[in-house]
Amino acid sequence: MGSTILSELATVIIIPVCAVVGIIFSLIQWLLVSKVKLTPGRTTYNNHNKNVFSDSLIEQEESINEHNVIVKCAEIQNAISEGATSFLFTEYQYVGVFMVVFAILIFLFLGSVEGFSTKSQRCTYDVHRMCKPALATALFSTISFLLGAITSVLSGFLGMKIATYANARTTLEARKGVGKAFIIAFRSGAVMGFLLAANGLLVLYITINLFKIYYGDDWEGLFEAITGYGLGGSSMALFGRVGGGIYTKAADVGADLVGKVERNIPEDDPRNPAVIADNVGDNVGDIAGMGSDLFGSYAESSCAALVVASISSFGMDHDFTSMCYPLLVSSMGIIVCLITTLFATDFFEIKSVNEIEPALKKQLIISTVLMTIAIAIVSWIALPSSFTIFNFGAQKVVHNWQLFLCVCVGLWAGLIIGFVTEYYTSNAYSPVQDVADSCRTGAATNVIFGLALGYKSVIIPIFAIAISIFISFSFAAMYGIAMAALGMLSTIATGLAIDAYGPISDNAGGIAEMAGMSHRIRERTDALDAAGNTTAAIGKGFAIGSAALVSLALFGAFVSRAGIQVVDVLTPKVFIGLLVGAMLPYWFSAMTMKSVGSAALKMVEEVRRQFNTIPGLMEGLVKPDYATCVKISTDASIKEMIPPGALVMLTPLIVGTLFGVETLSGVLAGSLVSGVQVAISASNTGGAWDNAKKYIEAGASEHARTLGPKGSEPHKAAVIGDTIGDPLKDTSGPSLNILIKLMAVESLVFAPFFATHGGLLFKL
Amino acid sequence: MGSTILSELATVIIIPVCAVVGIIFSLIQWLLVSKVKLTPGRTTYNNHNKNVFSDSLIEQEESINEHNVIVKCAEIQNAISEGATSFLFTEYQYVGVFMVVFAILIFLFLGSVEGFSTKSQRCTYDVHRMCKPALATALFSTISFLLGAITSVLSGFLGMKIATYANARTTLEARKGVGKAFIIAFRSGAVMGFLLAANGLLVLYITINLFKIYYGDDWEGLFEAITGYGLGGSSMALFGRVGGGIYTKAADVGADLVGKVERNIPEDDPRNPAVIADNVGDNVGDIAGMGSDLFGSYAESSCAALVVASISSFGMDHDFTSMCYPLLVSSMGIIVCLITTLFATDFFEIKSVNEIEPALKKQLIISTVLMTIAIAIVSWIALPSSFTIFNFGAQKVVHNWQLFLCVCVGLWAGLIIGFVTEYYTSNAYSPVQDVADSCRTGAATNVIFGLALGYKSVIIPIFAIAISIFISFSFAAMYGIAMAALGMLSTIATGLAIDAYGPISDNAGGIAEMAGMSHRIRERTDALDAAGNTTAAIGKGFAIGSAALVSLALFGAFVSRAGIQVVDVLTPKVFIGLLVGAMLPYWFSAMTMKSVGSAALKMVEEVRRQFNTIPGLMEGLVKPDYATCVKISTDASIKEMIPPGALVMLTPLIVGTLFGVETLSGVLAGSLVSGVQVAISASNTGGAWDNAKKYIEAGASEHARTLGPKGSEPHKAAVIGDTIGDPLKDTSGPSLNILIKLMAVESLVFAPFFATHGGLLFKL
Repeated sequence: MGSTILSELATVIIIPVCAVVGIIFSLIQWLLVSKVKLTPGRTTYNNHNKNVFSDSLIEQEESINEHNVIVKCAEIQNAISEGATSFLFTEYQYVGVFMVVFAILIFLFLGSVEGFSTKSQRCTYDVHRMCKPALATALFSTISFLLGAITSVLSGFLGMKIATYANARTTLEARKGVGKAFIIAFRSGAVMGFLLAANGLLVLYITINLFKIYYGDDWEGLFEAITGYGLGGSSMALFGRVGGGIYTKAADVGADLVGKVERNIPEDDPRNPAVIADNVGDNVGDIAGMGSDLFGSYAESSCAALVVASISSFGMDHDFTSMCYPLLVSSMGIIVCLITTLFATDFFEIKSVNEIEPALKKQLIISTVLMTIAIAIVSWIALPSSFTIFNFGAQKVVHNWQLFLCVCVGLWAGLIIGFVTEYYTSNAYSPVQDVADSCRTGAATNVIFGLALGYKSVIIPIFAIAISIFISFSFAAMYGIAMAALGMLSTIATGLAIDAYGPISDNAGGIAEMAGMSHRIRERTDALDAAGNTTAAIGKGFAIGSAALVSLALFGAFVSRAGIQVVDVLTPKVFIGLLVGAMLPYWFSAMTMKSVGSAALKMVEEVRRQFNTIPGLMEGLVKPDYATCVKISTDASIKEMIPPGALVMLTPLIVGTLFGVETLSGVLAGSLVSGVQVAISASNTGGAWDNAKKYIEAGASEHARTLGPKGSEPHKAAVIGDTIGDPLKDTSGPSLNILIKLMAVESLVFAPFFATHGGLLFKL
Repeated sequence: MGSTILSELATVIIIPVCAVVGIIFSLIQWLLVSKVKLTPGRTTYNNHNKNVFSDSLIEQEESINEHNVIVKCAEIQNAISEGATSFLFTEYQYVGVFMVVFAILIFLFLGSVEGFSTKSQRCTYDVHRMCKPALATALFSTISFLLGAITSVLSGFLGMKIATYANARTTLEARKGVGKAFIIAFRSGAVMGFLLAANGLLVLYITINLFKIYYGDDWEGLFEAITGYGLGGSSMALFGRVGGGIYTKAADVGADLVGKVERNIPEDDPRNPAVIADNVGDNVGDIAGMGSDLFGSYAESSCAALVVASISSFGMDHDFTSMCYPLLVSSMGIIVCLITTLFATDFFEIKSVNEIEPALKKQLIISTVLMTIAIAIVSWIALPSSFTIFNFGAQKVVHNWQLFLCVCVGLWAGLIIGFVTEYYTSNAYSPVQDVADSCRTGAATNVIFGLALGYKSVIIPIFAIAISIFISFSFAAMYGIAMAALGMLSTIATGLAIDAYGPISDNAGGIAEMAGMSHRIRERTDALDAAGNTTAAIGKGFAIGSAALVSLALFGAFVSRAGIQVVDVLTPKVFIGLLVGAMLPYWFSAMTMKSVGSAALKMVEEVRRQFNTIPGLMEGLVKPDYATCVKISTDASIKEMIPPGALVMLTPLIVGTLFGVETLSGVLAGSLVSGVQVAISASNTGGAWDNAKKYIEAGASEHARTLGPKGSEPHKAAVIGDTIGDPLKDTSGPSLNILIKLMAVESLVFAPFFATHGGLLFKL
């Protein structure tokens, strides 16, 4: 055991400074995006940007000062933004009620552990010392829960605002060339990515320091209370993902089924009454939902690492710098991502369509390589050369290079998962092309091949996760797992940027179509969008992989806190937990898919009704009633998000209270190992179908042209696959990683209660 | 501890007598079926059967002595029988090679445990006694493996022979009325059910008694060697299910895609070149495959129970009657099923179409109720009032009424699973009707609703299995689980009878269509078939539920034999096993579904080629080339069954040898809890789609008629769902229960080797 090179003072400065730098960088990006004006008549484009000088050729392709087009784009953007804002506010009203009720529950459950006594008590792990009363933990857990929830909601909301601010600007820039449009879309993604990463870090850091005023030397209690932050973040993410996911896919499926399949009008055609709802959906589901989700993962893995650290030698020796190692890694991540972003926006330039996907992939590679160096530095200066880590009742000696390897293995596993996901979902490779080819014999073979592809795509990611777990677990027990998760999430700013880029491009395409812009513009936005589809799948891969690691770390922390020494599969209590836990992802998916199906049916009926009853609609003479479709999606998603939400939130409470911590451990392990598979296969199957359809539509190769063009029989089969994939990839799949994380973090927060009062049924 | 009421002599007599009674009953049923003559000109129907007297009204509906029709039926039956026989012989050639190679492997691996020494060794559990050498266990395990394999192959083959003997006879009887046809189909199913159940019991009993000549008092060694019987049975079942499953679905999907979808000709139309292959498929997949599968489950649960019993007080006190308790339960099962069968064939009579499904359901209820009484009697007379059971290193005291409850809970859980499966797959209830309704908006919503239905249908069966596990585990540890599994399988003869009834009716319908029989006949066989679809789903539910219990029992026996005290999820070795194990069902499903897809594509091309190049085929003037289609299915299934087979057979060997018994325990637990979910959801989704289509086609209700008729848009969407469901319900789904069982039994057989030499990678 030795001291760290980095002093405590330096740590205290570095973390908030990195967070503030991230926020400033995000504001600069926003400023650059805002230079594209949405008010007609003024065309002062950002001429000081170096990209412009080499772009004069492209600049002349379209008349860029067309008054009508700009007005129309602004109008559409406004409609989308209003729809999204109104949906989120409605959602937040319901979620707010939940937040308050759950906050009270947390306070009551945790307060009851010591019978609401205000006396100090013996610490859980170090029984020779005195810790703050359980009532304090109850109070501070409640506060940090609320803080986490509010930060999460804010993250989602800001993300949505930025995206709806950027979409029309991307469309307008597309008139000047694909490179311009790419930069605007990517910069907007970066605004969101950096704001979320920096914001999450800053709020967490400030909360820790404020709580410290009360807790003083009782780090064990302090970080136990901090886990509420992760619970708050993830519970909001659940509603965001599920509600947003149902919203977006009900609208999308509804719009496609009538518009594309029955009426044979193109995607995003302004005559389609569900088209605004569809575009709103991208912003509330893929942007706000995903923002909350990744924020939740980040908050949870930080909390898991901090909790384990607090009962390891860092916490017991009060070594603040080492204690903050997880936060220092995240801080470095912001700086690394900042440098990485410059590679996409300033150091290089996109000139043609086929450079987009490589540019986005390069972002992943550059950030991973740079981050490896950064982690090495942090591990060297912020950790003693050896220290002990809490390992289910014992302390385990760990060296700083071992911890470096733990973080790295997570980081690189993330990259591998990303690339495997790309391989299985991008139409540049044979798996998606095979799926497209199977459309020759109709929708049935397309679905069979797509499902098989999704199942197959699980194999390598699972091995990557398993290897990460084995290495980090063997080196540094649950702290190693938590740090591997943080390693995977350390480049979250870049991950979010390329992830948010997708829906922004999707929206930009929608706006171009609705504003009646030329075919050439639409082709450019389509190219941006196709790359976005793949990056969205990669983002989901990251989210699922990190969720698996985070849940395991939280599970470990829960087991430690609940005082369990072994989780033995060979006991009936644990085994039935394992079996039922493995079933939960299916139950949850059944609910969400059925919800999307029912909501889509309602949407279909409304869209059909409008086409049938509004004269002149099909001819484009009359505007459809967009608002009713927005309302159907809003109502359906608010109503339908409650049962799956309740399933996830209530399961740990019921199981822990009635069956006790052993069965709950089984449930957590079961839902983790089963949920990861369902989530990965669902996301990739959906992504593959979407891109198989795009492959046929684009007709870029000899093979693709034999399957096309749009409207051919194989294309129709591909559209059916795409529609089936929608709820899989955007509702069930991505919600599942919240299911596994959330149940674990909730169990951890309630662990003191379950350990004291749980298992009522077996006690009787 | 006391002695049993039933003497050893009585036990020695009862078991073989019951088995022989079962075989005789099966032969009587066969004799009754054979009274329907397939040679024209002689129409001596079984007039001494009491059903005939009340049937004179129906008898006159059709002219029953039409020479041509009978000749045609005989011809078609011959073609199907020849195709099935030739496929099975080809399959057995490959499987035979595997059998020999694997037998050698078993001998070498197990022989090497003590370095091929012929000296006696200390017993594993009772170290104060001397047991037979490991080499003897190696040799006898190899012999019992071969016996199990041969019995399994024989079971499948006999089942297929009976089914192909009965199909045309059912068609001919359908001319006389639906009741007559039902009885023939049901009797044929019973031939198979009783033959398999009795045969399995008899071979096992004889083997035990022969092995006893060598082993004498060393019951531990004896029953360890007997587990090879289960491994042999299940490994053959794997190839039977996978090979047969790919065969039948490649033919079915291929026939449907071109025939029904493209050419708009009815199912089983003789102009379709794949029609014979399709009907052959039903016999090799659903009959031979399923026969081997359930035989495997039965053999394995018996072996698991016997192994645990041999190291419990039964084995240590050499109490032969108690030791044979599992076999006595199965013996009683045969008698109970015999009585139950009479309710369907002799005590009651089916007069109209809507009585078929209730009659089949009644079979399940009657057999379960009677069996409960039988188990009570056996538990009372064949067990001491209290005894001890081996429980992971300790002995646990158990009372006979507790063991009675263990068997009962399995038996009744089976019934619950059966009824839930029926609820989710029969078109008499709202779930399937909802799926049918969703066809209104096209194939995409049909698929979304169908998948959601499958996911949802998992919930109650999992709770039923979990409760059975909890009760039987708590009462009697792994012996309880094994007995619960045997309880679920105790009515296997009835289960197999109603299960085999399905494909026989399906074939009967096919023959009616091909022989050009009247619409009325086809309607009758269709009604038989629709009920068969539901019972097939119920049969799969049973197979999966019992597989879950069997695997857990085998897993427990493996853990005991490998000398592991706990399987702690909180160790990296176990956790990565759990994660990877949960992935295996996906890997396996990806392989099998892709195989069906590829084979179906080849079939589609061949069928299209024949329609396009053979003049007069579409007009029915020329016969298609059936043989080429049969050959495509045969070649594809033989080729494609090897990779999934290798995955299942090699995983335990590789994991056990390289990573050791802890990781292997994780893999077994993971694949068990994940595989059950995938299997149930896949089977039920497929069953629901099939019946949703039938619901629209039958048009029996006002609602159904708004969706139909055949050829309407909703019907087309339903056909797509049905085609997607084919590989799910008949290839992937039912093969998965073999995956989980087989890996467990294989681990058990190789446990001595893994315990001694396993975990090479971690040892380095």
